[in-house]
Amino acid sequence: MSNSYANPRPVSIDGKWTVASSAKTFHATNPSTGESIHAAFPVSDWSDCDKALASAAAAFRESRNLSGARIAEFLDEYAKQIEGDKDNLVAMAHEESALPKSPRLAEVELPRTINQLRLAADAARNGSWRMATIDRKANIRSCYRALGPIAVFGPNNFPFAFNSIAGGDFAAAIAAGNPVIAKANSSHPGTTELFGKLAASALQATGMPAGLVQLIYRTSHEDGERMVADPRLAAIGYTGARGAGLQLKAVADRVGKPFYAELSSVNPVVFMHGALRERGPKLAEEFVGSGLMGAGQFCTNPGLLLLLNSDETEQFIQSVVDKYTASAAGTLLSPSVESSLVKSIQVLSQAGARLLTGGAKVQGPRCAVANTVLRVTGTEMLSDPHTFQTEAFGNAVLIAVCDSYQQIVSIIEALEGNLTGTIYSDTQGLDDHEYAKIADALEQRVGRVLNDKMPTGVAVSPAMNHGGPYPATSHPGFTAVGIPASLLRFAKLTCYDAVRESRLPEVLRSENPTGATWRSIDGTWTLGAIE
Amino acid sequence: MSNSYANPRPVSIDGKWTVASSAKTFHATNPSTGESIHAAFPVSDWSDCDKALASAAAAFRESRNLSGARIAEFLDEYAKQIEGDKDNLVAMAHEESALPKSPRLAEVELPRTINQLRLAADAARNGSWRMATIDRKANIRSCYRALGPIAVFGPNNFPFAFNSIAGGDFAAAIAAGNPVIAKANSSHPGTTELFGKLAASALQATGMPAGLVQLIYRTSHEDGERMVADPRLAAIGYTGARGAGLQLKAVADRVGKPFYAELSSVNPVVFMHGALRERGPKLAEEFVGSGLMGAGQFCTNPGLLLLLNSDETEQFIQSVVDKYTASAAGTLLSPSVESSLVKSIQVLSQAGARLLTGGAKVQGPRCAVANTVLRVTGTEMLSDPHTFQTEAFGNAVLIAVCDSYQQIVSIIEALEGNLTGTIYSDTQGLDDHEYAKIADALEQRVGRVLNDKMPTGVAVSPAMNHGGPYPATSHPGFTAVGIPASLLRFAKLTCYDAVRESRLPEVLRSENPTGATWRSIDGTWTLGAIE
Repeated sequence: MSNSYANPRPVSIDGKWTVASSAKTFHATNPSTGESIHAAFPVSDWSDCDKALASAAAAFRESRNLSGARIAEFLDEYAKQIEGDKDNLVAMAHEESALPKSPRLAEVELPRTINQLRLAADAARNGSWRMATIDRKANIRSCYRALGPIAVFGPNNFPFAFNSIAGGDFAAAIAAGNPVIAKANSSHPGTTELFGKLAASALQATGMPAGLVQLIYRTSHEDGERMVADPRLAAIGYTGARGAGLQLKAVADRVGKPFYAELSSVNPVVFMHGALRERGPKLAEEFVGSGLMGAGQFCTNPGLLLLLNSDETEQFIQSVVDKYTASAAGTLLSPSVESSLVKSIQVLSQAGARLLTGGAKVQGPRCAVANTVLRVTGTEMLSDPHTFQTEAFGNAVLIAVCDSYQQIVSIIEALEGNLTGTIYSDTQGLDDHEYAKIADALEQRVGRVLNDKMPTGVAVSPAMNHGGPYPATSHPGFTAVGIPASLLRFAKLTCYDAVRESRLPEVLRSENPTGATWRSIDGTWTLGAIE
Repeated sequence: MSNSYANPRPVSIDGKWTVASSAKTFHATNPSTGESIHAAFPVSDWSDCDKALASAAAAFRESRNLSGARIAEFLDEYAKQIEGDKDNLVAMAHEESALPKSPRLAEVELPRTINQLRLAADAARNGSWRMATIDRKANIRSCYRALGPIAVFGPNNFPFAFNSIAGGDFAAAIAAGNPVIAKANSSHPGTTELFGKLAASALQATGMPAGLVQLIYRTSHEDGERMVADPRLAAIGYTGARGAGLQLKAVADRVGKPFYAELSSVNPVVFMHGALRERGPKLAEEFVGSGLMGAGQFCTNPGLLLLLNSDETEQFIQSVVDKYTASAAGTLLSPSVESSLVKSIQVLSQAGARLLTGGAKVQGPRCAVANTVLRVTGTEMLSDPHTFQTEAFGNAVLIAVCDSYQQIVSIIEALEGNLTGTIYSDTQGLDDHEYAKIADALEQRVGRVLNDKMPTGVAVSPAMNHGGPYPATSHPGFTAVGIPASLLRFAKLTCYDAVRESRLPEVLRSENPTGATWRSIDGTWTLGAIE
């Protein structure tokens, strides 16, 4: 599967695949073998970044006024091309990420990615995402419009669904009419290049501006920061490591630019006493399935379990430990995921968490850490909540055994922002009285509250919130998953005050532009025209 | 009208009017006389801030779950009390701001303020602002909920409508269910205190938590920054000077907290050639009315005019200069507004702008600067666009006379973000061909585009955008005026995934909670219940 070009792979700038300006390169690693993959990918210096920014700015002058139908053509064509190249994409992503070809890559993640692009096309075509708001009496009308060129930094854990040139941020930014400069995640550059080729072909087939989609692979920290600060870039979508994300965010903040980051989350799960008593063994099984799925490498992986001190809790923990010990450790995405998981486990251990199973690298070249369970008391956790909520990204979980629900509430109140928070309770209502207190605290700390269901699934639903208070994300009001809401991150509210009808964007004119665009006219949501 | 207490005025913390912890005080100035107003207002040290934060956090535990109807009761009661104390408020605001009692304070700004509070009450009661989104098939539901305690820093130029304890940010934050810590603008502490008393009385009459509305007057920079960084504070609404705003914003950014700032704007106005030829004298009059209204102390004051080199332009300029010279200079809000206006005029002059009239302080104790018109060529403006877009807050305007529409477009492209951008064109369509190019550039730089209408009026309309790209505001997607949209700044998106019906917030349950709440159910906006 490895490419074996002697020369570095090209970057895609201004509609052309060109040799990167710098001669520096890097290689991805096959996490199953620990070996370097042959293809050399380029590090882009400022000259590449500068050209990409210039081309994106030029593309934006055109794309901001493209109709939603035209943008949808591109997204649909791109989705179709991805569907047609499925086998190559799955093979390459498997080599680069070690994620199972089936079902994960072929039957789950790629179909999801294609679906996201099609939903984004629907949203672009439909135009309801623009939230057209019309005040007839005052003759003031407003809607969301494209914001400008967007840089997307994709994460390592979804080579398809969050890929910087094909995933959720990409789809949202394009659907809203913005050019995207994709910065490939360095752990799957080959997969990203395959997408880039399909995107280029779809751009051409649908007559889009050359700079609408561009691809670079890696930059120095300095050039990355310079790009973020550049006035030609309007906003950034970033999913990935917290340290690097915060550094880029600081640069964006200084120039007043939206930086939509998804950084880290331990996704607390509370198992209430009634639920454990009612169906403890089933819950242990359900948790283990979710906790070890994809070697735990999900943003919404349940990394912190909160339980009351009881016999049922001890049985639950024993069952989890047994299953974690008996299950083969999944392959991690990269050597750096492996080393940071080992480090996080050490941080938790050194703070006083007891290792019940796992904790060390699986010997051999494969990137893997033994399935790991750590345990603390609620009192210990409260003595150093900062350290005990260290995210151990991967197949590790921290279980806090608490003295009381009040202690669980206190722990939740000491948590930073998280993407999700889950409560399992009994089905007869015995837990209901205590539920409210826990949920009330949890709702303030997370973007999504779940009942009796593991948080690892992130449905692409208009009602989804894949977001949460800082540092889960960088703004508590936006979601990265869920169409059309995710488009609003990459949009600018624009108001037209007494602007003549013929000069208004279509979505604000008297006729309903598509016949199917929801608009709020004088406070009433309607598909109708303005009378 | 002056108070003459020997002791400093109390602060309002945790439902009690108490002596500030620090003995430091300050006095406001009567801008009409330049004299210090007798009442001494306290500087709050950290002890006051800390108590206010603790009380706000306690209030939030209650307020976040209050029904919209309960919050509306408070807002309506407060509006009623303000109406009942109109004479005192107008007299005090006039003394502190020199703004005319009539019509400005009594007939325009106070009614607007009362109306805003009532519209916010309607929004709270109605619940449509929560954007309830329900996906029945996936059983995922989301809505916006209260975010947490909000600090509001109000500006000097609207003692009523943007007052930190009665204005737009206050109304929006409260309506969304958040406690407010109001930091009074130091130029009208007496007006703010009057509001604070009415708010306290309304809180008590409607049984609200004590810490829902609190008032402090001034803090050291250090304590202000410490408050912004404090985890008990969820977000900040700030309208005011750019320097101080950016310093506080940097603190909020570091802790990942939304900081909604409105900082500065020159509000470019393009007079197209056809418009001047058609109705030049009328336009000069219209501009002068807007430019000198309230001594030009509006966020949306037209501070930069862009015109083509022509005889009509010379006539227009002469007419503006004549009117500016002949009109009495309005009283400015404070000595610091006066000195910063003089300084900005100097910055523009030193960069090469020619002073056509005004430019200096009006002699005497009154805060006033002669009505000022400055002129540059488009070429000069493009040689140093950074300096030439210095905001001269007050009764001054910079006129750029350009060689071509292309030059006007280039100038617009060189502008920072602004709140508004206006284009006057002829009514016969002769300007239409050139309009598109100008509007296309302008739309990217401003939050609100106007046609043939001065930007100074900011209607409280659901379609209004009183916002704009940085540095006009700190996020291009939000508005500070316009209900219900302004509430979303102070809200958190929260998703409920498989959460049992009885545990959902009312707005997400099957029944439409008010019968009048707009909700998006399976992609359809409806007032109906879930079937």
